[in-house]
Amino acid sequence: MTAVEITAANELSAIDAATAYWANKDVAERTEFDHAAYPLWHGQSKMRQRLDRSDPTHLLVRGDGCWVEDIAGRRYLDARSGACNMALGYSRVDIVDAMAKQAAELPFSCVIRYDQPALTTVRYAAELVAAAPPGLTRVRFTHMGSASVENALHMSRLYHLNAGQPERTWIISLRYSFHGSTYLTLAASGDDFVEKVVPVPPPHLARTPVPAFADCPGCTGDPTKTGDCTAALRATVDGIGAGQVAAFIVEPMMEGPVQPMTRHFLESVRDLARKLGFLVIYDEVTTGFGRLGALFGATHFGVSPDILCSAKGITAGYAPLGAVLVAEHVYQAFDQETGIHFPNGSSSDGHPVSCAAASVALRAMYAENVFENARERGAQAVAGLREGLADNPAVGPIRGVGLLFGFELLQLDGAPSVYETTRRIQAACMELGVLVQHGGEYIVIYPPLVIDERETEILVDRVVRGIGSVTR
Amino acid sequence: MTAVEITAANELSAIDAATAYWANKDVAERTEFDHAAYPLWHGQSKMRQRLDRSDPTHLLVRGDGCWVEDIAGRRYLDARSGACNMALGYSRVDIVDAMAKQAAELPFSCVIRYDQPALTTVRYAAELVAAAPPGLTRVRFTHMGSASVENALHMSRLYHLNAGQPERTWIISLRYSFHGSTYLTLAASGDDFVEKVVPVPPPHLARTPVPAFADCPGCTGDPTKTGDCTAALRATVDGIGAGQVAAFIVEPMMEGPVQPMTRHFLESVRDLARKLGFLVIYDEVTTGFGRLGALFGATHFGVSPDILCSAKGITAGYAPLGAVLVAEHVYQAFDQETGIHFPNGSSSDGHPVSCAAASVALRAMYAENVFENARERGAQAVAGLREGLADNPAVGPIRGVGLLFGFELLQLDGAPSVYETTRRIQAACMELGVLVQHGGEYIVIYPPLVIDERETEILVDRVVRGIGSVTR
Repeated sequence: MTAVEITAANELSAIDAATAYWANKDVAERTEFDHAAYPLWHGQSKMRQRLDRSDPTHLLVRGDGCWVEDIAGRRYLDARSGACNMALGYSRVDIVDAMAKQAAELPFSCVIRYDQPALTTVRYAAELVAAAPPGLTRVRFTHMGSASVENALHMSRLYHLNAGQPERTWIISLRYSFHGSTYLTLAASGDDFVEKVVPVPPPHLARTPVPAFADCPGCTGDPTKTGDCTAALRATVDGIGAGQVAAFIVEPMMEGPVQPMTRHFLESVRDLARKLGFLVIYDEVTTGFGRLGALFGATHFGVSPDILCSAKGITAGYAPLGAVLVAEHVYQAFDQETGIHFPNGSSSDGHPVSCAAASVALRAMYAENVFENARERGAQAVAGLREGLADNPAVGPIRGVGLLFGFELLQLDGAPSVYETTRRIQAACMELGVLVQHGGEYIVIYPPLVIDERETEILVDRVVRGIGSVTR
Repeated sequence: MTAVEITAANELSAIDAATAYWANKDVAERTEFDHAAYPLWHGQSKMRQRLDRSDPTHLLVRGDGCWVEDIAGRRYLDARSGACNMALGYSRVDIVDAMAKQAAELPFSCVIRYDQPALTTVRYAAELVAAAPPGLTRVRFTHMGSASVENALHMSRLYHLNAGQPERTWIISLRYSFHGSTYLTLAASGDDFVEKVVPVPPPHLARTPVPAFADCPGCTGDPTKTGDCTAALRATVDGIGAGQVAAFIVEPMMEGPVQPMTRHFLESVRDLARKLGFLVIYDEVTTGFGRLGALFGATHFGVSPDILCSAKGITAGYAPLGAVLVAEHVYQAFDQETGIHFPNGSSSDGHPVSCAAASVALRAMYAENVFENARERGAQAVAGLREGLADNPAVGPIRGVGLLFGFELLQLDGAPSVYETTRRIQAACMELGVLVQHGGEYIVIYPPLVIDERETEILVDRVVRGIGSVTR
């Protein structure tokens, strides 16, 4: 074999050919995917299944407001906000303009190794902290939810190392939680399935049951109840040894089971953590930036964690970015003369173009009061779905906070697997022009925070009809 | 504590105040950082040290071509390309326009969970594969180098699991390598220091010495040599048990020690891997997208891996993106009826705005033949530095491939620590208006691939003077 000679003209024509092959017109004319010619390996499922089910004309080409459009010109109400990222909808000229201006002026400056970050990045950090839940005073940037949680988990162990308690290494999460898809965050997630795809799991991760909030007098306000929402967590901590626990990580609302925590649980966890010396991490990758009708789940519940992980809605989806907000005492543990610094970081963390988008998005969320809209439209949608699906025995209780809502699908005699049924519901809704998320046993819905009353009616109507066409 | 009421006006004015505080004029007038008011926690070193040494007017605000400018109007030749990201320099109108167009039309579509990726993402995947080293037929997108390597490491274990060899779980890397800063990639890196900041290291990671290429007849072409560049790797594999090794990961050129591999070593590794059944992963996060004077290190050396990880230069720095290129047999192992799918992925992988930038950047690299420029300017710079630093006993041999070059700093009697000296060299160069990277014991230089002959002269002149002002 000889070393490859660079023949610029040859390579460029190959790139041109690939572009032409996938140009709109060509793809729209194709009746099925050519597996071998489709080089993008996507999905967190098998590409074979994905491609067999896919119509090549489903590829998306544009969006406006809460709507997206595919190559064939079909329009869909995007009730999954991309993947819970498009908080403010498509075609936001203000965000696009800010990104273009920043990209033209200074598209990059590295914050992890150098002493010259971009002014835009420093400024956005200050803006974010100004709006953050009480006590969260410093911010590290990442690019994505998994990286934010990676930072938080690693940080919680090193925090204790710097604080003279190196034996505090265990991290506890809830069963059925999802904290990301990197090696560590996948292993720290609760799903049994997830455990199966990590052949060599990392040590010192534990899981604890999701509380039965309905049994807890603090959670329900009903003094006839006798349960205790933190009992299982306390037992897990005791089982490990209280002096060995680094942190407990929790989503203020779990997307998969559409299961919100309660304020009483979060307050009790905070008190327990302070008493026993471990940190509390909120994974707000999904719930952050307005989803629950407040900037964060911590804002909604009025309880701050030691570390808060976010991503997704932070730029309203216009560019990749994540942020890890930390309490002052966490930051200070890394800023002593002795001890070690914090090693995680990527060269494009706090990318100026992403921060420019995030800055405009943050202001817009307050200026346009999307939080109030999220609460009102969420209440409208949940009421509409409850009414429209009241007599459908396949549909579990419809739960929601703000614009994150959905339901569990109940198994019916003779029905195919629940997974296959929720997948079919998603497909039926898509056929009717509304995109919802199916999470295995659940249908989860999270439209852009700017959805209006009429669009919410359309959403409810189509989802009710889509579900009805599959389960009856 | 009562739940926090959303008071949009209050929060917005706090954000406005934070913006005003960090507006150009205010910061420029400040003489030192107010630690408490500086909420951005950056660095992979202690913020205290960073802030104590920093001048607030160093914050960057704009760039053009190979140059960046700070708040105070000082201009620097950016000979570290941001962090090896800004492959084509600043102020590329073509890339900015493509990003703005994409952000306005369709800023987002998720590839990991849905059947409707953006056409832009699918098209760029095809373009990238068209230009990729032979045999790499599929691509998964990420956002950053660490995530690309996370994918590759996890993928190599699951590949063997799907191929019926679940006991193949060990991953081998080179000592002194750097493969990222997430939990797994940090632990899979070679640096002893790195091991110290991973309190609970994940299992089944091994390291092997960097080959002594100068002793290997295949590497030097000198038949009087008797060494074997793959001997240490073979011994490490044997020590683990050949049937238990999942993959060997290697950078075609290690940035820190400015140490390129050789074609003979990479060919021998490929042959050994095929014989013993493990995969070969190239970490091309630094070396990819033109840095070595070819699209990839694999292109430069003419040897393809099973999995190739990239990021940084892929969008020329204008947006966060990473790509993992994989051989067909790796992809097929995950696309069988039986076996498990690949679980890693982030919701904004293959972000359309990033792919739009990457598509223009890829074409520009070929159309403008930056590869040839990188080889010529690299040779010019290395020759100039060798001449200018010939009589400086503190400077080790100047090594380089393409536009990635540098040298080790040699310890002098009575000098402060090597780390402190390289840091001072970096600061002295900055004072002279050129930004270089100090990697502890090394000075590493990687200007944009579009640097011209005159700018290369300026670079050499300033670096020689900067080094001379510290070591004499």
